Amino acid sequence: MKIHLGVLGPHTTTEEQYRLGVEVGQEIAKAGAILFCGGLDGMMRAAAEGAKSAGGQTVGILPGTDKTTANEFIDIGIPTDLGAYRNALLVRSCDAVIAVHGAYGTLSEIAFALRLKVPVVGLHTWTVSREGHPDPGIHVAESAKQAVQLALQLARTP
Amino acid sequence: MKIHLGVLGPHTTTEEQYRLGVEVGQEIAKAGAILFCGGLDGMMRAAAEGAKSAGGQTVGILPGTDKTTANEFIDIGIPTDLGAYRNALLVRSCDAVIAVHGAYGTLSEIAFALRLKVPVVGLHTWTVSREGHPDPGIHVAESAKQAVQLALQLARTP
Amino acid sequence: MKIHLGVLGPHTTTEEQYRLGVEVGQEIAKAGAILFCGGLDGMMRAAAEGAKSAGGQTVGILPGTDKTTANEFIDIGIPTDLGAYRNALLVRSCDAVIAVHGAYGTLSEIAFALRLKVPVVGLHTWTVSREGHPDPGIHVAESAKQAVQLALQLARTP
Amino acid sequence: MKIHLGVLGPHTTTEEQYRLGVEVGQEIAKAGAILFCGGLDGMMRAAAEGAKSAGGQTVGILPGTDKTTANEFIDIGIPTDLGAYRNALLVRSCDAVIAVHGAYGTLSEIAFALRLKVPVVGLHTWTVSREGHPDPGIHVAESAKQAVQLALQLARTP
Repeated sequence: MKIHLGVLGPHTTTEEQYRLGVEVGQEIAKAGAILFCGGLDGMMRAAAEGAKSAGGQTVGILPGTDKTTANEFIDIGIPTDLGAYRNALLVRSCDAVIAVHGAYGTLSEIAFALRLKVPVVGLHTWTVSREGHPDPGIHVAESAKQAVQLALQLARTP
Repeated sequence: MKIHLGVLGPHTTTEEQYRLGVEVGQEIAKAGAILFCGGLDGMMRAAAEGAKSAGGQTVGILPGTDKTTANEFIDIGIPTDLGAYRNALLVRSCDAVIAVHGAYGTLSEIAFALRLKVPVVGLHTWTVSREGHPDPGIHVAESAKQAVQLALQLARTP
Repeated sequence: MKIHLGVLGPHTTTEEQYRLGVEVGQEIAKAGAILFCGGLDGMMRAAAEGAKSAGGQTVGILPGTDKTTANEFIDIGIPTDLGAYRNALLVRSCDAVIAVHGAYGTLSEIAFALRLKVPVVGLHTWTVSREGHPDPGIHVAESAKQAVQLALQLARTP
Repeated sequence: MKIHLGVLGPHTTTEEQYRLGVEVGQEIAKAGAILFCGGLDGMMRAAAEGAKSAGGQTVGILPGTDKTTANEFIDIGIPTDLGAYRNALLVRSCDAVIAVHGAYGTLSEIAFALRLKVPVVGLHTWTVSREGHPDPGIHVAESAKQAVQLALQLARTP
């Protein structure tokens, strides 16, 4: 089975953030991995657009009950009706995840990834400190290319 | 997005039941729909084998945490770690489902489909009666071909 | 820890069905067990009213996000935001369940109980047949008192 | 219905951390709120012990399938079989939560609380920064008493 790489990020993005998401999606597709994301707008759409533009395949783990809520770059939309629990399901479905910017939803996905030992790469996103000490769990990348390379290296493989 | 048709059925099958499952999978692929199933053995494997043999695409909604537990005919295995709740997620992901034989797990999926208004076609499977009155919710089919045709007709479409 | 007995049933009831639910709740409280239910109206309210009238304790496993949606006889309302998955959680929380009348939601709970090996007692509710053969999994009772006695005997105990 | 206050924290604790958890549980019970926690050991046991020692009531949202896995200070143990998703359910069940120390499981609960707009008070626990800027979402307390007072003030009320 192919590698599943998740892209986590906000519902709304600046143009610059969107371009970064597209680039991450392209790198994922070029690497032959399947893109997993939340299937909706903003960073989720950006990554899916990128993956499709590079000939990749995309899966959207949707919060609601209607698969047609997925953005137009999603090949397989899974309407989970799991609301916020779907953030955990998305992370669980991936061999590694890349967080790009993001608000509290992304933070919850990062935290779930850390808890579930799903490797997590961060690109201009959250950092976390435990009782004042920075936690090394999030692998920091500086570019889309580096983020995807790191994620592929770290990906859980059978 | 393509139609998602789910096949529900037991973990272990007789040879005859397996052949029926393969046939259902083939019909689904020939119709251009994506096969969704539980991703493991028995009827789930049969339907996936059938779909792949006819050039289709397969998604397995797995109960555990490891996507490599999917059978060899699953293209995209989603390790939900949702245990029994995954039966509800599988049904939720589909535009219609076809139950083929099956034990209590299949019964729970049929019941969830009825509850969630996901059309359900039955092929040699459970029937249910409410306070003594047979319930018409399960659409009975007599062959793989008829089951898939019925499911396509009933499938929720945007 | 005390025994948890679940009452499953419809959102709306006739007066006669409501009285039966009250009686079931009373018997559960008299037996010293905690009543678990879906926390909303109809049979859920009836059973909770019965349990409180007999000095018992009640827990409502709610589908939404607001604990104040619980009926006035619920001591502890748990707003799961799990939608239909909450039916599985309710059953999972119980040592045995009693289904009283009910529609598809109740059928899904009965099926989950059968699947999860949580003993299930039926009182004027669904019956299920597997490929034409009536399934013996639901223990049939004829009165509230008998239903609760059966459920207590069957309850999973540590 | 009474206020539900959740205590989040690690599976294993130092003696000093345990004492702090007991104190938090006592303050919750003295305030007339119900203590919600994960139901197992470490900080979960400490808070439950504190709440019971002050005459309070305790609910444990357990990860597995067996309610007898709850610690001896839990009145109502709910065996969710939801694994890591149960962290989200615990937070969802509360009107406010108090995180005391904690590892990645606690971080995931804090993040879910922030996402779900459940007020979160932190006591010697994680802090989070968004793209380099400390996030003000976690209300910092310095003592058990202050933490519970803050949580009560912030608690979502109908």
